[in-house]
Amino acid sequence: MDTDRVPAHPDLRTITLQQVLEAVVEPVRRSILIQLRDSPADIKCGAFDLPVSKSTATHHFRILREAGLIRQYYAGTSRMNALRHAETDEAFPGLLDAIVAAERRATRS
Amino acid sequence: MDTDRVPAHPDLRTITLQQVLEAVVEPVRRSILIQLRDSPADIKCGAFDLPVSKSTATHHFRILREAGLIRQYYAGTSRMNALRHAETDEAFPGLLDAIVAAERRATRS
Repeated sequence: MDTDRVPAHPDLRTITLQQVLEAVVEPVRRSILIQLRDSPADIKCGAFDLPVSKSTATHHFRILREAGLIRQYYAGTSRMNALRHAETDEAFPGLLDAIVAAERRATRS
Repeated sequence: MDTDRVPAHPDLRTITLQQVLEAVVEPVRRSILIQLRDSPADIKCGAFDLPVSKSTATHHFRILREAGLIRQYYAGTSRMNALRHAETDEAFPGLLDAIVAAERRATRS
């Protein structure tokens, strides 16, 4: 792994509820979280189904990373994304699960 | 009760997750929800501890009411506020509780 290219990830203990809510209030960012939650494996940036340009998507990935919600790393030339689910759930118990569940109910109906 | 002065309240089934998140992303609005959650009784608009002007507070109450999170009614000349907790929790299971719990942890630390 080329650690020079791996972006910084915050300690969840430094993340505020305000940051998390500002991250998840944006629908595209919630879509990224749902796709990660539904995927059996981590997903590279280019493989998400998103209704925005590549540069806009990159912005959304950064916001999610800075809010402590996703971890990004390189596999070869691909920037991969993983949910920081256990850490997030420890810092904000039940919050992400409640949002994902509500989003899924909305998508089904 | 003077029903002419009672504002309209939406059916929770018409409220989207997006509306709820936009309502709770604002810190003063979360403070209103927490104070209602912590109170044994409904609270009149003027009795909340809020760092904003009366007109700004009125705006925040309206956003919360339109997002289905609070119910407003008159008792004499006082506009009272109640959490629509059971209805909200049915529509968005666990969401409000997770936000309130996270806010409380932050306030304690």
